[in-house]
Amino acid sequence: MQILADENIPMLEVFARHGQLRRVAGRSLDRAVLGDADVLLVRSVTQVDQALLAGSQVKFVGTCTIGTDHLDVDYLRQENIGWASAPGCNARGVVDYILGALLTLAERDGVELAQRCFGVVGAGQVGERLVQVLRGLGWQVLVCDPPRQQAEGGDYVDLATLLQRCDVISLHTPLTQQGEHPTQHLMGAAQLQVLQQGSWLLNASRGAVIDNQALKHFLQQRPDVRAVLDVWEGEPLVDVELAQRCDIATAHIAGYSLDGKIRGTEQIYQAFCEYFSTPPQTAMCFPEQTLQALLFSGDTSVAEALAVLCRAVYDPRADDAAFRLSLQGDAQMRRAAFDLVRKNYPVRREIPDLQVQLSQPTAALRQMIAALGIVF
Amino acid sequence: MQILADENIPMLEVFARHGQLRRVAGRSLDRAVLGDADVLLVRSVTQVDQALLAGSQVKFVGTCTIGTDHLDVDYLRQENIGWASAPGCNARGVVDYILGALLTLAERDGVELAQRCFGVVGAGQVGERLVQVLRGLGWQVLVCDPPRQQAEGGDYVDLATLLQRCDVISLHTPLTQQGEHPTQHLMGAAQLQVLQQGSWLLNASRGAVIDNQALKHFLQQRPDVRAVLDVWEGEPLVDVELAQRCDIATAHIAGYSLDGKIRGTEQIYQAFCEYFSTPPQTAMCFPEQTLQALLFSGDTSVAEALAVLCRAVYDPRADDAAFRLSLQGDAQMRRAAFDLVRKNYPVRREIPDLQVQLSQPTAALRQMIAALGIVF
Ligand SMILES: NC(=O)c1ccc[n+]([C@@H]2O[C@H](COP(=O)([O-])OP(=O)(O)OC[C@H]3O[C@@H](n4cnc5c(N)ncnc54)[C@H](O)[C@@H]3O)[C@@H](O)[C@H]2O)c1
Ligand SMILES: NC(=O)c1ccc[n+]([C@@H]2O[C@H](COP(=O)([O-])OP(=O)(O)OC[C@H]3O[C@@H](n4cnc5c(N)ncnc54)[C@H](O)[C@@H]3O)[C@@H](O)[C@H]2O)c1
Repeated sequence: MQILADENIPMLEVFARHGQLRRVAGRSLDRAVLGDADVLLVRSVTQVDQALLAGSQVKFVGTCTIGTDHLDVDYLRQENIGWASAPGCNARGVVDYILGALLTLAERDGVELAQRCFGVVGAGQVGERLVQVLRGLGWQVLVCDPPRQQAEGGDYVDLATLLQRCDVISLHTPLTQQGEHPTQHLMGAAQLQVLQQGSWLLNASRGAVIDNQALKHFLQQRPDVRAVLDVWEGEPLVDVELAQRCDIATAHIAGYSLDGKIRGTEQIYQAFCEYFSTPPQTAMCFPEQTLQALLFSGDTSVAEALAVLCRAVYDPRADDAAFRLSLQGDAQMRRAAFDLVRKNYPVRREIPDLQVQLSQPTAALRQMIAALGIVF
Repeated sequence: MQILADENIPMLEVFARHGQLRRVAGRSLDRAVLGDADVLLVRSVTQVDQALLAGSQVKFVGTCTIGTDHLDVDYLRQENIGWASAPGCNARGVVDYILGALLTLAERDGVELAQRCFGVVGAGQVGERLVQVLRGLGWQVLVCDPPRQQAEGGDYVDLATLLQRCDVISLHTPLTQQGEHPTQHLMGAAQLQVLQQGSWLLNASRGAVIDNQALKHFLQQRPDVRAVLDVWEGEPLVDVELAQRCDIATAHIAGYSLDGKIRGTEQIYQAFCEYFSTPPQTAMCFPEQTLQALLFSGDTSVAEALAVLCRAVYDPRADDAAFRLSLQGDAQMRRAAFDLVRKNYPVRREIPDLQVQLSQPTAALRQMIAALGIVF
């Protein structure tokens, strides 16, 4: 079996046990490079469609990404080519990002997170995990997800209610223009207007879920509101003035943990093995975390331990600093700088990788640690 | 023996084994309250002079502070009253503050600390410790301390040379108007003018060692320079515009670790025991650190481990946030808010309290940890 893969996919070695592995630059991948590969493994930079695959031997396509915009899924189905993506692989990274951002906002406003009311808009792979963590921490959470509400029923609120009752709003929907519940400019001037005094608005979904121009004008009039943006309308070109008005501004890296990338490979590897009915030859191995364990005494406050734990693993202020440094020069330079920040992203791990020891465990500390997803 | 003490001095209990201990509010302390105390233990809020002591029984005065401005030392000598202060007790706290500030500036400028040239002005209790730590980390350090240079000789440079060659300047002199080397406005417009492009200027000594008006105008013209101020000309009233131009701005709390406060008590307890030729009845006991230990793997980079270690114990961005929140309202409100931030200061420990374990210790990691003063 011939396996052709984007060289930037981590941990490709696992596939080498099942055939001959060839690594190429994802952007260089065309019909000629493809040759007579049986399996194609890509990232979002490679368009997988008739133009690429017509007349090829490809039987299975795997993309190590949560999205499938770059796959012509209809064509794949029609040609009976198997395919798999990696839904949710980087969802935990986004959760860690949101936790880090919340800690910073709480510090800057001098408030306690436990006193806030959290509104999560979109409860899919990311949003659902975030809700679990926030509720596990004992915080008050409202959720808005009309598609899920219609499909499953349950304890959801509509957006208007959420905006009215919450003072922290975090967006986790896809970007959609069509359908019953389109999300483009879900937060427009009208929605922003109803935000409570001192609200926080976070977006690590897709830029255009917020009307960026409306937000820029709104933040000018309402300096009491704090904004955290990881995604931007028109990125990689970012409105510099909007970025300057944000408390935390980053270059679409919320989900960029190493674990997430490895999990992406793991998920398509599992799908590959299932498709070819071949038993997995090896388990994916995650590199050792450099910060392995923390030991707290039993009289540590929950809030203090939470902050130390989250920040020791990941503090978005570092990415905020890197992004602000990239906001220089003309549009072309800034575009390139945005991509460069993402390309040269440092190794980042996830909070559940940590080990925590408590010299005299209290119930409250145990609960917090469990809520973070740390096995204790 | 009757011992009268300011109730805000921590760990006073140790004195109770040597006599009858009475605790009072420091500001309420007058001749009447003093009664027939033999020993007086104060903080900086109590003026100790003839007005307070005349006709009293006091034989020994201890102040748990590094400064002695509030003691009339000439009077004490003349009356043959023993006295002691606690030089250097909070010096380590200032070192931790500077380390935390440097980590933030490096992140914001996207530079490596190991590439900078550090200039320490004033190498007394604080400055000398800082120099030891920075040199231990393998960084390049120049020191300016004309009084020590004259008294001891050695490897010092003058201020002009230091400003010319260093891109990080940290001030640790006393505030003096008289003498051969007065420090008031040591950094004035002329000295600021020669700062290198992209320099960092840190002051956790006394506000007026920098000409604050000159600095404010300078920062307006030179946004490439980053300033960190813990002390302010005219504090507790702070120039809001100057604070806004600082990268880190705090309310004179650089040295405010719990360890420093306890060490202050310890030092005057030792002096008390010596003065009365009585053996210490107990060793001062420092409360357990809440974050007790961190375990790193051997392939952690030195820079990464340094940042995690320092910040897990203390990150001045928290105090910066609290201070900025206090910069509201009229002069009277801001004055009160400045004092309140200091009065309600959270418990803060010191970096050397930490325990660090390395799963595969490398020489570089060991050296860094030793440089921080962590027993390994
Ligand atoms: N910033 C990053 O690094 C990063 C990383 C991962 C995911 N993302 C983005 O985050 C978003 C969520 O990702 P996911 O993996 O959880 O997607 P998902 O498809 O698993 O979940 C999306 C959820 O949004 C809900 N939804 C759809 N329309 C809605 C509407 N109008 N109002 C409320 N809810 C609505 C859906 O029902 C679904 O439950 C996506 O836009 C994704 O591209 C960003
Ligand atoms: N911000 C805080 O919380 C905090 C805490 C502790 C100390 N401090 C302040 O920090 C400063 C240093 O404290 P310390 O305990 O190290 O004092 P120290 O007296 O031990 O040391 C001061 C040093 O400065 C040197 N010096 C004097 N004039 C000088 C000049 N013109 N140029 C260069 N060096 C000169 C002295 O020779 C001495 O070595 C003091 O102003 C002190 O009040 C502030």
